[in-house]
Amino acid sequence: MDAQEMLSTHPNTTSLDQSALAECIEACLECAHTCTACADACIEGESDMDMRHCIRTDLDCADVCTTTAQVLSRQTAPSWDLLKAQVGACLRACQECGEECRSHADQHEHCRICGETCQRCAEACDRLLNELENVAEA
Amino acid sequence: MDAQEMLSTHPNTTSLDQSALAECIEACLECAHTCTACADACIEGESDMDMRHCIRTDLDCADVCTTTAQVLSRQTAPSWDLLKAQVGACLRACQECGEECRSHADQHEHCRICGETCQRCAEACDRLLNELENVAEA
Amino acid sequence: MDAQEMLSTHPNTTSLDQSALAECIEACLECAHTCTACADACIEGESDMDMRHCIRTDLDCADVCTTTAQVLSRQTAPSWDLLKAQVGACLRACQECGEECRSHADQHEHCRICGETCQRCAEACDRLLNELENVAEA
Amino acid sequence: MDAQEMLSTHPNTTSLDQSALAECIEACLECAHTCTACADACIEGESDMDMRHCIRTDLDCADVCTTTAQVLSRQTAPSWDLLKAQVGACLRACQECGEECRSHADQHEHCRICGETCQRCAEACDRLLNELENVAEA
Repeated sequence: MDAQEMLSTHPNTTSLDQSALAECIEACLECAHTCTACADACIEGESDMDMRHCIRTDLDCADVCTTTAQVLSRQTAPSWDLLKAQVGACLRACQECGEECRSHADQHEHCRICGETCQRCAEACDRLLNELENVAEA
Repeated sequence: MDAQEMLSTHPNTTSLDQSALAECIEACLECAHTCTACADACIEGESDMDMRHCIRTDLDCADVCTTTAQVLSRQTAPSWDLLKAQVGACLRACQECGEECRSHADQHEHCRICGETCQRCAEACDRLLNELENVAEA
Repeated sequence: MDAQEMLSTHPNTTSLDQSALAECIEACLECAHTCTACADACIEGESDMDMRHCIRTDLDCADVCTTTAQVLSRQTAPSWDLLKAQVGACLRACQECGEECRSHADQHEHCRICGETCQRCAEACDRLLNELENVAEA
Repeated sequence: MDAQEMLSTHPNTTSLDQSALAECIEACLECAHTCTACADACIEGESDMDMRHCIRTDLDCADVCTTTAQVLSRQTAPSWDLLKAQVGACLRACQECGEECRSHADQHEHCRICGETCQRCAEACDRLLNELENVAEA
């Protein structure tokens, strides 16, 4: 996937850093898939561990990442305040899900991968939030 | 739809006010549909007006409301911080879309209805945010 | 919610029966919420029963119903073939989830309600599919 | 993104060809983003052309691809019939959107890219449908 190439075709690209924007969209899409698959693997897995908290954070994180990617894919008439609020919620979801999954990383390979994917998405959200602050102030 | 009846069947309902929760879920689902239909009517409509801003806010509001309803429909192992962040983003989306749609209410019946629906959803989000503050402090 | 009122404001409403269309949108939105909540209640519930199949069908049905409602909310330049394919997939999801949930109706109140909601949504999809056949042939 | 690595961590991977499955998930996620961005670029673009049909097919294709990726990301207790129905709807959406976008490829770079992305996703859906037929018969 090359989100930046597609974003660059918009007739009125925003002043937002296009690299940070593309990186965040790609991270959100990867995280949505990984969290959906991690929840499913947690549901299937016979285990002595209680995975209910992990399943909940996975499902929430998948939903929030999906919507964040969709909102970020639009460049027409942007609202910096809404973008900051939604990316902020996504950062929170990725932090919580990443922390939960990393706590099971030694027992479940799907949680190890999901913890790393959430971490990358949280970092991409954090970087984009900084760019959104700069654009909103400019 | 009776979201509260379904929520009450959860084996471990949260201390969150169930009436405010059910009201917000129902408002989000109605708003997601109405904003999707309003965007579509704006796209179809031959008009002298520039509806691009309205279409953008409609599409964003529909996506954010859909995800907010999903996250709110779960009661297992809730994170008050994530709920506050996502409902806060939804409040923002509904406020912005409602304001934009109401500005076209005299020209477009779909914008009039959508402006009112967004207003109801914003009020339901605001009420639930207050409940979330109380629960988080308790 | 009054989906039909909003649909009627479109500048170019389709020849599709608007009552059947509105009924199907409302049923899909209710079913998406109910299936999301049923999956969550199944995840939380301590039980001797294996609820993994039920959780899977709930999650799939919620996703498919959400997208079906969105696609049906648009009336601009419709493709009857795509609508038939998506509503057909939704009918299948509701039939399978309803059957699975009804098999647990005596043990879980959330499955009883969800089974009934899926049944209503399946009937609404079936009725709309008949209308779509008529429109496509006209 | 490496969907296949994540899929392989499931405690009970299905007999479905994992390479075709991973390829289809990745194609759906890319297509959902590209169609969302193409619709947005069509909305923004000042043009002599009527882009309403293209916007509609873009929005539908984005929704259908998003849900298809989610359903395919689950391997617990799969229903081959539901998977075939949903991937079939996705194939239809990608064929229609790809055809529409390619008809504007000379005028709009975003439609050229989107037409190619839809084509790749349609091919991935078609390949997976063949695998689903084989698994269902086995």
